[in-house]
Amino acid sequence: MTTLDATHNPTLRSWVESANVAGTDFPVQNLPFGRFRPAGTDEPFRIGVAIGDQVLDLKAAKVVDHADMNLLMAATPAERAALRTALSEGLQEGGAKQGDWEIALYPQAAVEMALPCRIGDYTDFYTGIHHATTVGKLFRPDQPLMPNYKWVPIGYHGRASSIGVSGQRFKRPQGQTKAPDADVPSFGPSKRLDYELELGFLIGRGNDLGAPIAIADAEQHLFGVTLLNDWSARDLQAWEYQPLGPFLAKNFASTLSPWIVTMEALAPFRAKFERPEGDPQPMPYLDSPANREQGALAITLEVWLQTAKMRDAGEPATRLTRGSTTQAAYWTAAQLVTHHTVNGCNLQPGDLLGSGTLSGPTLEEAGSLLEITLGGKQPMTLPNGETRTFLEDGDTLTLRGYCEREGAVRIGLGEVSGTVLPA
Amino acid sequence: MTTLDATHNPTLRSWVESANVAGTDFPVQNLPFGRFRPAGTDEPFRIGVAIGDQVLDLKAAKVVDHADMNLLMAATPAERAALRTALSEGLQEGGAKQGDWEIALYPQAAVEMALPCRIGDYTDFYTGIHHATTVGKLFRPDQPLMPNYKWVPIGYHGRASSIGVSGQRFKRPQGQTKAPDADVPSFGPSKRLDYELELGFLIGRGNDLGAPIAIADAEQHLFGVTLLNDWSARDLQAWEYQPLGPFLAKNFASTLSPWIVTMEALAPFRAKFERPEGDPQPMPYLDSPANREQGALAITLEVWLQTAKMRDAGEPATRLTRGSTTQAAYWTAAQLVTHHTVNGCNLQPGDLLGSGTLSGPTLEEAGSLLEITLGGKQPMTLPNGETRTFLEDGDTLTLRGYCEREGAVRIGLGEVSGTVLPA
Repeated sequence: MTTLDATHNPTLRSWVESANVAGTDFPVQNLPFGRFRPAGTDEPFRIGVAIGDQVLDLKAAKVVDHADMNLLMAATPAERAALRTALSEGLQEGGAKQGDWEIALYPQAAVEMALPCRIGDYTDFYTGIHHATTVGKLFRPDQPLMPNYKWVPIGYHGRASSIGVSGQRFKRPQGQTKAPDADVPSFGPSKRLDYELELGFLIGRGNDLGAPIAIADAEQHLFGVTLLNDWSARDLQAWEYQPLGPFLAKNFASTLSPWIVTMEALAPFRAKFERPEGDPQPMPYLDSPANREQGALAITLEVWLQTAKMRDAGEPATRLTRGSTTQAAYWTAAQLVTHHTVNGCNLQPGDLLGSGTLSGPTLEEAGSLLEITLGGKQPMTLPNGETRTFLEDGDTLTLRGYCEREGAVRIGLGEVSGTVLPA
Repeated sequence: MTTLDATHNPTLRSWVESANVAGTDFPVQNLPFGRFRPAGTDEPFRIGVAIGDQVLDLKAAKVVDHADMNLLMAATPAERAALRTALSEGLQEGGAKQGDWEIALYPQAAVEMALPCRIGDYTDFYTGIHHATTVGKLFRPDQPLMPNYKWVPIGYHGRASSIGVSGQRFKRPQGQTKAPDADVPSFGPSKRLDYELELGFLIGRGNDLGAPIAIADAEQHLFGVTLLNDWSARDLQAWEYQPLGPFLAKNFASTLSPWIVTMEALAPFRAKFERPEGDPQPMPYLDSPANREQGALAITLEVWLQTAKMRDAGEPATRLTRGSTTQAAYWTAAQLVTHHTVNGCNLQPGDLLGSGTLSGPTLEEAGSLLEITLGGKQPMTLPNGETRTFLEDGDTLTLRGYCEREGAVRIGLGEVSGTVLPA
């Protein structure tokens, strides 16, 4: 588990003035990594660190000598700590690097972001117990959670090729669906297109095939956290998913935020990880004192919607829900890493583990429209009078995340947004 | 659909004598691609073509100027046809290239093979209707096939990082299992480790996100065929797979044969694709005259087992089963490509599509031990007196495939073997 050091000092300020503004996602205590290039060019993407409303070009700042994020992510914990310290010291008010690094800054408004790394394999988990319970109730009122849910961190493989960075615009998927009262399926655009509010954990150092990662070591293999929208076509999924799981209902698009907030940056925002009274304790391979003491992450997550009509009228997005990951996840990121590898499966730098939909215990904290509208039965009314059961063409959906705690400086995960185009 | 041309002429012979020996997998009519390097070196892998018991180094032969198989696979159909013609003419008896190319040959016995390409995403389908029926009966005697089976080519995403080339040796996976009569799960090595006999289809040219591949164009996006062993831990799978599908039961290892037999080479071995009387016809997006006329592949598949005891006694492997893919697959490779992309999902050169277990209608053609031993209830006796319900440590399992037809020269897919190590 990462510990607090000088880089977390809440009194630190940066010579980049926008990093000291209250409410910024990217104060000098954050220092997330992303890949960028000057907007409107076709230059190769390079590694940058977000600071206030600027990006520091790590190669121009002579901090790294390459542009390969996956290589950077494969660093040892000691190398990562050293890099973070160097960035913190260089960007601090009064730091000796100001003269050299000022010319390596780009305004975020003037850059294009890529996916933060090459994602070899993408695994999506199902740690949101309130989501699993609410969705399960729609299908199985008597037994919302499967018997394995509190024992096995349920997960499945997702599609890496269709993951895009924030700003992704994708066509509404077409496919087979079958109405409950129909004899045969029909074909057409999905009528129940939804979002899913997730965290995306990115792997740093990998493991060899056949060499599981023990729970005590799992955090060392996590590089950082992003926001992930796991778009879902509920009607395609209902017809296709038996017996091998979701497929075309998910793989038409998934959208990731551009900045990886490191596990080091999240150190002040760890929380106890406790099982509800009466629930089974995790099996020994998924249990450790450190995981119990501070395995959870305290991140606040928000979902915002801007419809085409709102955009045309110049109206801002409206917030649909807000909740906390501490309330939502039944398994920690470390448990996901250990479970994923316990059979010998190898993880590689840049692999993505989705948390699953992180809904809180109430509908005000729900992470999908399926939950908010009770399976599409209860439309939601927006401030401009429009209603939604599921997403409509032209809708832009944005996820935001941030961490706040007494005695620490607020840090943010930035945002991930995506827009639905007609089929 | 690829048509016959001069490269399929059954009277063609090669100046590489071993390519003319009856029963070879690699006559001059085959010309499969793989990646190799001289054994015992750490030279970069290069692209080769198998001919008899030799490998032609395509760069040394001045046929390609790079070592990137995925780039070669992305070629247009015209470029692929031209490459095949050049290779056929150069390797033919009396061909003008003999002098130049003789020095670009390596004995297969003296090379190490890599995976034939970089596999970005791996999707496993479930086209084996006899397998699905037999396995379904074990769980649901009244309804072995799900209602969607004859409408939807069922598939799910697999793990790319743990795919290895023939010769892969992997540890028996550990994980959670739950006995039917137990209250809680237990942890340990899998007791029901199995193989699955599959074909692996490799994608050539890809498609953009949001641009589905029509059934009429689907064959043009298929580069070729390999053998795939989708190792499966049945006991892990039974406990983990609800509701999102197989995960740790599969991703500990999957093994691929090293040679990609191209769709062009398979042109003489296409067959009618017919639905059994009374079954629904494919939906229009999955149907075309060409797919009906010759969408199927006529490949004979065999499964061989050599136990540690047999190996120690110098006894050869024993054949467990033999069957034909024409009898086994409910969906064609073209239908898999079209279904996979109908929602806009993008395929990329080198992506792998598994066929699912290709069992024939009888137990003598079964593609897994789960079927042969009736779910582990009826042990199989081997020639040396050993018995098996599932795989034991030290077992080496080998899949072989070949095509034979009156009027055509036999071609083979080679083999894929893998060995189970103790947990």
